[in-house]
Amino acid sequence: MAAHMSERGPGAALASRWADDSYDSLVAGDWLVPANGRGLVLFTAKFELVVSRLNTAITEISPSGVAGPLWCPPVMARSDIERADYDQAFPHLLGDVNAMVQEGGREGVAGDSASSRTVLVPVVCYHIYPQLADRVVERPAHFDLAGHCYRHEATTEVGRLRSFRVRDFVLVAGEAEAWRWRDEWITSGAEFYARLGLKVSVQPASDPFFGPADRLSRRSQLEQQLKYEFVADLGDGGTGMAIGSANCHKDHQGSRFGIRYRDEGAAHSACVGFGLERIALALIRTHGDDLASWPAFA
Amino acid sequence: MAAHMSERGPGAALASRWADDSYDSLVAGDWLVPANGRGLVLFTAKFELVVSRLNTAITEISPSGVAGPLWCPPVMARSDIERADYDQAFPHLLGDVNAMVQEGGREGVAGDSASSRTVLVPVVCYHIYPQLADRVVERPAHFDLAGHCYRHEATTEVGRLRSFRVRDFVLVAGEAEAWRWRDEWITSGAEFYARLGLKVSVQPASDPFFGPADRLSRRSQLEQQLKYEFVADLGDGGTGMAIGSANCHKDHQGSRFGIRYRDEGAAHSACVGFGLERIALALIRTHGDDLASWPAFA
Repeated sequence: MAAHMSERGPGAALASRWADDSYDSLVAGDWLVPANGRGLVLFTAKFELVVSRLNTAITEISPSGVAGPLWCPPVMARSDIERADYDQAFPHLLGDVNAMVQEGGREGVAGDSASSRTVLVPVVCYHIYPQLADRVVERPAHFDLAGHCYRHEATTEVGRLRSFRVRDFVLVAGEAEAWRWRDEWITSGAEFYARLGLKVSVQPASDPFFGPADRLSRRSQLEQQLKYEFVADLGDGGTGMAIGSANCHKDHQGSRFGIRYRDEGAAHSACVGFGLERIALALIRTHGDDLASWPAFA
Repeated sequence: MAAHMSERGPGAALASRWADDSYDSLVAGDWLVPANGRGLVLFTAKFELVVSRLNTAITEISPSGVAGPLWCPPVMARSDIERADYDQAFPHLLGDVNAMVQEGGREGVAGDSASSRTVLVPVVCYHIYPQLADRVVERPAHFDLAGHCYRHEATTEVGRLRSFRVRDFVLVAGEAEAWRWRDEWITSGAEFYARLGLKVSVQPASDPFFGPADRLSRRSQLEQQLKYEFVADLGDGGTGMAIGSANCHKDHQGSRFGIRYRDEGAAHSACVGFGLERIALALIRTHGDDLASWPAFA
């Protein structure tokens, strides 16, 4: 999953004193403006300068060979989500887009509100598997993606945004290569965050991207070491904030989307997600409100 | 409205031969990748380089005094939309976000799908009025916004994206100033597009942002000259593509959101919208697939 935060047990990863604060200090620092919706904020030009530099820095470590990500819209076909079983695993987090069905094609005529077969994107790497669906991948395929995610989160502390942006590197390949690539990213991801001046620890985590039929698999995710999170120490004595993750999906996506790797059966996949707002928030917490005094990282 | 395309009668503004083509030539030019959802595409790094340059060029002509836009999420509180009466005027275009209601707060327990009181943003400048709601504005207030819009469009020809990005300058002020500012933008907007190398004509247009109770007002929008569109000639003998607009809202938003201007009653507002994908598409159509050969504009 492109999930840069775990869907399960994420409370712990946000249990910093800062997270319990209001947004006041971030507003005072000219970083963001709260909006009316729960977990929704507007970002200032100053905040976006950080996001822009961050994207540039991430592009420099991209393994895709392309100078920048594929930019994905915040919505996608519901059929793609259903094929990934996300709607079964996380019905409470998924934003389903409903629209008024037009009667007789006439504008302005009220009809019934119904699912538009469109959903808010929950996980950025879901944009890729439909592109490869029902195909044979002959060599390791690298992708660099960026886009908005939406999670219908129940809480709204700082960092727990309902709408947030993720940069995501994805590999679709064979089993050994997917594991090796993910394991290498545990190291190089930590190095990347260190270069940004962040104190990050790598922690095993779980997010149940297996469907309900796979509860046993889900429970064993920790044991299988499928997911590691990069957790930033915010220097407040709290347990830190998850700002990114490195994930093995095994052949889950390959099986669901009919993607095969050579003659080896269902393709394996792995991804490394960067939570852009959360990394920016960790940088702000670490380096302060005066952007001019920050160490250069891009 | 930040609407960069008119909601009513937009068919005409897209009646170019190119618009009837498939996306094939844009895919071949490495500009975009079609996705499964209707009217949804992914944008390549090459396309995004154009969008990025475009945003830089627009920042240079921003009247807000801030070096870059406020970045808005693709979703917002439904209450804000309802206050603007958009849900009444355009129920068929509005994307309402539904989510599973959790029973007893337990994760993974299926409940009923219900409106989350969140909607996909239909018009970027709607982010601003709630910020000013029930307040008195003492001097002309300039804003520079960027964000995603969603319209549940019935057709999906090239340029008719369901999810698209808009850069939007907004002024909240007195009546005379709002009109003058909008009228000046008709000139300076046309000059801006000419600098990009686009052949643009300014055309009176209508979009019914008045509610159903204001059908007469709506009908007279053309006569009142509230909306002008910048229509790019795509050189194909067609009627061109609307890539931006300059709009007077009169005191519609001020009245709905309880925004007053000094002691003059409900504030007036105006906005100038830049349809980022459509401008990029017009640039591609005009300057071709080789980005290195394009005239510099940022």
